[in-house]
Amino acid sequence: MPLDFGAYFRGPARDDIVAALVLAILLVPQCLAYALLAGLPPQVGLYASLLPLVAYALLGSSPLLGIGPVALLALMIAQAVGAVPAGVAASQAALVLAAEVGFLLAAAALLRLDSLASLLSAPVLRGFETGAAVSIATSQLPVLVGAAAGGSTLPDVARSWVQSSSPWNHLSSAFGLVTLVALWAARGRTNRLIGRWRPAAQAQLAERLVPLLVLALAMALAAAWQVQRAGVGLVGALPAMTLPLALPPLDWALWWQLFPSAAPIALVAYISSLAVAESLAFRRGQRVLPRRELAGLAGANLVAAVSGGMPVAGSFSRSVVHFEAGMRTRAGGVWVAIAMALAVLLLSAPLAWLPKPVLAATIIVAVLSVLSPAPFRQAWHYDRAEWALMCAVALVTACIGVEAALALGVFGSVALLLQRTARPHMAQIGRVPGTEHFRNTQRHAVEATPGVVQLRIDESLVFTNARQLFDLVAAAVDAQPGTRRVLLLMSPVNSIDYSGLEALQSLHDALAARGIRLDLSEVKGPVLDRLQASGWEQWFKGRVFLSHHLALQDAAA
Amino acid sequence: MPLDFGAYFRGPARDDIVAALVLAILLVPQCLAYALLAGLPPQVGLYASLLPLVAYALLGSSPLLGIGPVALLALMIAQAVGAVPAGVAASQAALVLAAEVGFLLAAAALLRLDSLASLLSAPVLRGFETGAAVSIATSQLPVLVGAAAGGSTLPDVARSWVQSSSPWNHLSSAFGLVTLVALWAARGRTNRLIGRWRPAAQAQLAERLVPLLVLALAMALAAAWQVQRAGVGLVGALPAMTLPLALPPLDWALWWQLFPSAAPIALVAYISSLAVAESLAFRRGQRVLPRRELAGLAGANLVAAVSGGMPVAGSFSRSVVHFEAGMRTRAGGVWVAIAMALAVLLLSAPLAWLPKPVLAATIIVAVLSVLSPAPFRQAWHYDRAEWALMCAVALVTACIGVEAALALGVFGSVALLLQRTARPHMAQIGRVPGTEHFRNTQRHAVEATPGVVQLRIDESLVFTNARQLFDLVAAAVDAQPGTRRVLLLMSPVNSIDYSGLEALQSLHDALAARGIRLDLSEVKGPVLDRLQASGWEQWFKGRVFLSHHLALQDAAA
Repeated sequence: MPLDFGAYFRGPARDDIVAALVLAILLVPQCLAYALLAGLPPQVGLYASLLPLVAYALLGSSPLLGIGPVALLALMIAQAVGAVPAGVAASQAALVLAAEVGFLLAAAALLRLDSLASLLSAPVLRGFETGAAVSIATSQLPVLVGAAAGGSTLPDVARSWVQSSSPWNHLSSAFGLVTLVALWAARGRTNRLIGRWRPAAQAQLAERLVPLLVLALAMALAAAWQVQRAGVGLVGALPAMTLPLALPPLDWALWWQLFPSAAPIALVAYISSLAVAESLAFRRGQRVLPRRELAGLAGANLVAAVSGGMPVAGSFSRSVVHFEAGMRTRAGGVWVAIAMALAVLLLSAPLAWLPKPVLAATIIVAVLSVLSPAPFRQAWHYDRAEWALMCAVALVTACIGVEAALALGVFGSVALLLQRTARPHMAQIGRVPGTEHFRNTQRHAVEATPGVVQLRIDESLVFTNARQLFDLVAAAVDAQPGTRRVLLLMSPVNSIDYSGLEALQSLHDALAARGIRLDLSEVKGPVLDRLQASGWEQWFKGRVFLSHHLALQDAAA
Repeated sequence: MPLDFGAYFRGPARDDIVAALVLAILLVPQCLAYALLAGLPPQVGLYASLLPLVAYALLGSSPLLGIGPVALLALMIAQAVGAVPAGVAASQAALVLAAEVGFLLAAAALLRLDSLASLLSAPVLRGFETGAAVSIATSQLPVLVGAAAGGSTLPDVARSWVQSSSPWNHLSSAFGLVTLVALWAARGRTNRLIGRWRPAAQAQLAERLVPLLVLALAMALAAAWQVQRAGVGLVGALPAMTLPLALPPLDWALWWQLFPSAAPIALVAYISSLAVAESLAFRRGQRVLPRRELAGLAGANLVAAVSGGMPVAGSFSRSVVHFEAGMRTRAGGVWVAIAMALAVLLLSAPLAWLPKPVLAATIIVAVLSVLSPAPFRQAWHYDRAEWALMCAVALVTACIGVEAALALGVFGSVALLLQRTARPHMAQIGRVPGTEHFRNTQRHAVEATPGVVQLRIDESLVFTNARQLFDLVAAAVDAQPGTRRVLLLMSPVNSIDYSGLEALQSLHDALAARGIRLDLSEVKGPVLDRLQASGWEQWFKGRVFLSHHLALQDAAA
């Protein structure tokens, strides 16, 4: 829809501007933290929260999706830029990554590839989120205690820490651990405490401001004590707030090298954004359009690439604040950008005094609060194979890397799906006496019809199980001597691929060679349409019945 | 079953021995031809038709499967041994390949991996067979006309022929082309001609003997005219018939290099053998056991590896002769081996005079007679995407190579299956007036129930479509204002994976947030068992009805 500025300023603008101001103050430390987590200068996180929001507001479809740096992507960016040659600045590599992510998402929007998102199944996403949270928290532990160590996987961090010359700094640890305990203790409690006197929405907002108070206190103490002299790392003075508008470096070797990392970043950016946008929009009775979301994210990332940013996505925590703060239109993103620019101008002096251990504590609390054993417990009870995949993806994410984990996840999900279709449940059926219902002979007391093998296959006929059709039917025929007719109840067969068609034909011919007729009942409309289009009447000599009951009446006749 | 020798010699032995003698004479030229096609010395084909047959008779399960060198494998072997370093003899590489194929098949038998065979879908197999037939025929064209050129793909043959110093030999061409025309003309005609006077089985057998007469005539002419002086290539004197029993070369670099070729050879050997064995066995009311077939083929290939052979598989043409000649037990394979050894001893002098162009003509006729446009025509009408995959696999097989084609085929089949599950057919349903049947509102005149959205999803709920569940239901709810209840008819849902479970849960919660209840009807037993095991009653507040009719009655109450 085109934006009607007049109506907008008479209507939802006030809600949007209030929400934007709240959000801007909350976001500044988060942007700095995620840029540092990605191994980039802190101001990159701020740049990524300005113009990309405007691009999304113009192209996207969700009024609630908060675009910006997110922790999951920061980890992936850290691994990608960590692997580029020494001569290339990390921030240059991040621009190239953002451009590639933008182009990939734009291509996906143009080619209508939004369904590719389904390649990451739920077990893979849950395992990935868990492993990434553990990785991020681990990578911040050395920062928390002021150690000169780094890395983005458990073994990297451990190795770097063991070899570190300064594994510990007293004052850094004090800042980091006190902040960690304070933030962790405040989770939920502030909300409940204030909730006794004030409405729930205000209590929630107050809880969100607690971290800001903790950070303000830490900055004040750091400035008062001049803690940098005791070896505490500070964020330091941000460069003057001039947006570095320029094309990303056109170094094709670098583009080529980063491309394998850009693809999973684009996939994760899209999937995590879409999930947030859809669930929040539906609660308000609104819809998001997957292709518009792809376009919006593509625009945001391309703009990030030419304005000194890093790859961005929809952030769950930002979006929930949009929702709670009552943001009503996509234009809210523009207000957030303006408010953030103002906040940076006003706050850059105090932000210089923010100790890095304090920032590390905010990251650790943020990622650990999304850790949950619930999906693991549920998957364990639901499907052991999917549970194993979830655990494997989590382990590989934490110990080897994001790309290997996602590749394993896609491969594993596809293998499990193939296995699921490859072992169809098949039942011999018979009539429940006195009815027109037909049930499994092994579960129910049903009537058989002499000379007729009645089977129900609970799966589409596709190449993974086509070969078994023959085996299963042949076994049933051999077990029932004197069979003159095989009757397949086709109602659970949602589709038949070409391999299934060939299997049906060779079954038909093999049965015919023994004088047995193959009949089908309750074939679904779309399935029958396709069979007829293929010219199957040239070989199929059996009959197709509208219901299994009619098929058995015909046999009796 | 253990072989009971007494009963065997009183009963089926006579049938088996007669069949074996017929077969042996037919097979000798074929074995020589396929060894030459694989780029190996001709006697390798004979060695591969002796002891491996005995191994299969001991371990396999089909009485009719004829084991030996086959054209498809010969092409694959040619490509594999063509890539080994110059210092290694092709026959040594073939032994290593046979050993690897044997070990792979044995491992598959032990690990019960017989279902891996389904990775090659029907479109891929048909495309592969077509492309391979074209490749094989093309590779024999230079031999047919006596050119000094070779290769196993269209571009290789073309390049080698263009650069050839002697692209043509008059007498070779005469032998080759005359044989080609004679064999092609005799196909089917002899059968019909003799069929007028004699029973069909005898006519069929007579037709099979025509090629032998042609070959005998060619050998006689070649010997009479001493054609080698005019540059016609002859098979030449076979080495003395001493089975070279020895381990294959234990050169691990060679084993490592050939392994990527051994895996597809093992897969193709198993699949083509199983298809032949199953269809012939079923016609006699017998069954084959996939794991026993794996074991039999493993044994045959391992024995081939220690007795100077090459990778072997079940051959369609041999097996059909087994069937027609009335072979009754697996011991028939032993008789074939003995008869072949005899035939080689008696025939090795005349065989030395067999011109290679004549052999090339027999190969070309054999492979071109299996070429058929029928699968391409049927797939075109049935499913354009599968037709495109079939064509792509055929083209890649003919122009690039077997391994690339099979990799493309597996990847393409899996992608098409994912796409198939990713786009479920979904219908809004309503009651057919006066019945308990519920049909698509767009195809039938049905009654709606106010306030209730009734949907049927024609697919299992798996990760590829889990995300769409939400979209589809949300669209239906938004299109029907005042909805208080969503009722899903689950009878076509054969399974729900963990992603489907999460999708169901988030749909349930999102509907609940808008005051809409989610109910399910006709959930399949195994699906419901799993849902209950996962502890879904903790979040699912709707009801599950045995039938859709009952579910609507409940709404009315």
